[in-house]
This record gives sequence, structure tokens and C-alpha cells, in this order.
Amino acid sequence: MDLREKLIESKLLYDGKILKLRFDTVTLPDGELSTREIVEHPGAVAIVPITADGRIVLVRQYRHAIGDLMLEIPAGKLDAGEDPLACAYRELEEETGYSAGSLRYLSSVYTTPGFTNEKIHLYVAGQLCETKQRTDNDEFINVEIYSCMQIRSLIDTGVICDAKTMLALLLSGVLS
Amino acid sequence: MDLREKLIESKLLYDGKILKLRFDTVTLPDGELSTREIVEHPGAVAIVPITADGRIVLVRQYRHAIGDLMLEIPAGKLDAGEDPLACAYRELEEETGYSAGSLRYLSSVYTTPGFTNEKIHLYVAGQLCETKQRTDNDEFINVEIYSCMQIRSLIDTGVICDAKTMLALLLSGVLS
Repeated sequence: MDLREKLIESKLLYDGKILKLRFDTVTLPDGELSTREIVEHPGAVAIVPITADGRIVLVRQYRHAIGDLMLEIPAGKLDAGEDPLACAYRELEEETGYSAGSLRYLSSVYTTPGFTNEKIHLYVAGQLCETKQRTDNDEFINVEIYSCMQIRSLIDTGVICDAKTMLALLLSGVLS
Repeated sequence: MDLREKLIESKLLYDGKILKLRFDTVTLPDGELSTREIVEHPGAVAIVPITADGRIVLVRQYRHAIGDLMLEIPAGKLDAGEDPLACAYRELEEETGYSAGSLRYLSSVYTTPGFTNEKIHLYVAGQLCETKQRTDNDEFINVEIYSCMQIRSLIDTGVICDAKTMLALLLSGVLS
């Protein structure tokens, strides 16, 4: 059976500063109609920054969606038309105040394809140089540096519970 | 500095069959006002099902958000008030037609905390018994079984590109 759905009608319900919400009607493989709620997202990058002595630079910030502070790898949304690699260099420096001498590509992943097209491009950053943190007006970020042993413990105890952070750390090989 | 934001006003823009969209006004740590677009999601489970001979049961389905078929571990949304472990047993059997004799908890992760509260509970399933696939009316799913060597190759080549699938497979230890 062809598993594909065919788009019948698409309604843009919300067009916001970051997200768009669509309400789509589709034909299912059996010919029946169904509806899909889809969140459009511009895409993002996330970076595992490794210091010269093998520690990892993380960011702590308040996540209003969760209602709590979270410890994550630095990350940020793609500007319109922006190259993911350029975005990774930019976001790393803006969020952490470290510029990368080199970036290694890890993978590009869909965060939650059941309802959004958000794709995150994952990198490892090395040869870090201290510059200056330059966050957006609505971003307030603490930079914290941990050893790989500490990171493993933060994952095991559920303190680090952000999927992209855990996935990128595991893919990078720093925890093995 | 206290990094927390304070909620000033919350507007429910959309209340759908799966998602809700909120537009919240918050006070930032510096006292300025900002707005946050938040998608409320009921939460979900995802399961790494391992057969008696050490292979992995995956599901292939069309993801309208991406506009393509994707290969993922079985997963599904929590019903209102449902226990995640019970949901994992239920969703595994419904989506794959295999019931689990045992489930091992791996982790609970936020898929993309920048804009949604979606939390996924990850499990490993063993002692599988063939029963019968019973998908929802709007779900069309092919069940495919791969060796761990094949899974590694599907990840390396980007065929598997779903974050929860990659994370759960790595956390489960089947790829090491």
C-alpha cells in the first residue's frame, strides 16, 4: 500500500514571530479524509562545544514552555536563507561568548515529526576562543562548563533532559 | 541574576484535536516585556522493541509535517491521565502487532523545549509476542525489522533522522 497522504486543503491559522500553525485536510491511503495540525518552524542548529581540556560548554536558560530552567547545548534558530554552518558559528558565539576555530558536522534530525517540520543541524565545535556573549534582547543565558564525567551524571540523574542535547552529546563521542 | 520569566498574560489562540497554541506575555529577567509562542502537547512514549534474535522493530509511516515517509521506533501520544508505562505497552502492540513481555525505562526527554512542552518517555521492550496490529483510523504503518548493523547504517546514511528514534536507540545500548 502507498502510505502517502495527499493534501486537499491547507489553512494558515496563525502566522507568528517564530511559528506558523496550519490546519491541513488530507486524503489517507484508504481514501478517507483526515486533518493534520502542523507547526511550521524555520529550523535550527545546536552545537557541542569542547574546550581545549576536553570539557563541554553548556547554557542554562529559562524555558517558558516547560516553566523551568534547562541545561542544554547552545542552539538557535536559522535566519531566513541562512546556511546552517554559518548559523552554528554565529549562535555558538552569541550564546556562549566562545568562537569556534572548527566545526564538525554530526547529523540533521527532525525533533518531533508528528506535528512539526523543525529540523536541527548538529555540530561539534573545537579550538574555542573566548570573545563576548551577545544574546538577543529576550535571551538571558548562563554559561556553565562541565567535564564529561559530570555530563554523564547530569544525564543519568535527569538534570539534562533535552533531546537534542542528549543526542548530540552521544553522537559526538565525548561520552564514550 | 534570576533567569526566570514571569507570566503576565496567556491567550489560548487554538484548541485542536492534539495541539493547543498559546500566546503568552512574560516579564524578562531585566523587567522588559516579551512574548512567547507555546505549543501544548499531551506527551508521548516511544519504544525500542528488541526481538529474541536481537533485531529491532521499526515502523515506516507518512509524516505530513515533513511531507515524506519516515522510519522510526514505535511511538504514540498519551491519552488523558494515562500512565506512560501502560501507554508504552499499548502503543507498541497497536502500532507493530507485537506485545512486550517486559519494558525497561530509559529516560524522559523534552523534544524541543524552545516552543513546546512535549515530553517523551523512552523504553526498551523485550520478550515480544506476535499479536495483531490495531492502528487508529488515520494511521497507516508498515512494520520493518532490522539488525543492529543495518540500523547503524540507516543512521549513518541519514535514512533514520528522527531525533527520538536515534536517541532511544543510542540510550538502549543496542548499537554499542
